[in-house]
Amino acid sequence: MQITHIEHIGIAVENLEEAIAWYESKLGLKCYAVEEIADQRVRTAFFKVGQTKVELLESTDPDGPIGKYIAKRGAGLHHLAFAVDDVDASLQEMASKDVVLIDQHSRLGAENLRIGFLHPKSTMGALMELCGIK
Amino acid sequence: MQITHIEHIGIAVENLEEAIAWYESKLGLKCYAVEEIADQRVRTAFFKVGQTKVELLESTDPDGPIGKYIAKRGAGLHHLAFAVDDVDASLQEMASKDVVLIDQHSRLGAENLRIGFLHPKSTMGALMELCGIK
Repeated sequence: MQITHIEHIGIAVENLEEAIAWYESKLGLKCYAVEEIADQRVRTAFFKVGQTKVELLESTDPDGPIGKYIAKRGAGLHHLAFAVDDVDASLQEMASKDVVLIDQHSRLGAENLRIGFLHPKSTMGALMELCGIK
Repeated sequence: MQITHIEHIGIAVENLEEAIAWYESKLGLKCYAVEEIADQRVRTAFFKVGQTKVELLESTDPDGPIGKYIAKRGAGLHHLAFAVDDVDASLQEMASKDVVLIDQHSRLGAENLRIGFLHPKSTMGALMELCGIK
């Protein structure tokens, strides 16, 4: 597995419109896309910051992953996504190294990218995503 | 304030040596520096991932900021650092926009960079750092 860069940082927010306004007015970043991902029960907003994106995540369902996360821990940093060349091959490699996978196979995520999550119980605590065009 | 890129992502870990070994053996990243920052009561390890660094943070004092964070929330994503050209000027700009500062003035952080933190209660939940060479 070759990690080329940090593809994005996922941040759970209570209210997407308020958060977009905050990132634009205070930090001077520009939201370039808003997307609903029904499968993950979130609405997302993207900002480009150099090579990496900031992905804001608002829950569309209290029982979804972001809804549960916010209920338990509040809004804040949620996950770290590494860009890899081949997500399925990388997931297989992680499994072969005894890293616990949330996704056994890649699935389609935001921006039409393949994604797969690693379980934080086997990543020293941080929720990690592998992300790529295939 | 001009944010050029994400300077680093800070991740709180229980044990720095175990975490370095995990990031190197599982993810294939290479630790290029370990540094103790007495002022912040942490030991840090740095990995370069494209334009951004991953900074692992181990507490050296249960009453320090990372010690308290881990006691309350466990290991995991801790803060997001944006690279700016002038940290003091950026902190002043944030204050003028009613963002609550943890640091009223920049201080010296890891890798000899100037740093200043914004309070997560006024950043939509994520602990943010501004970071730069001046």
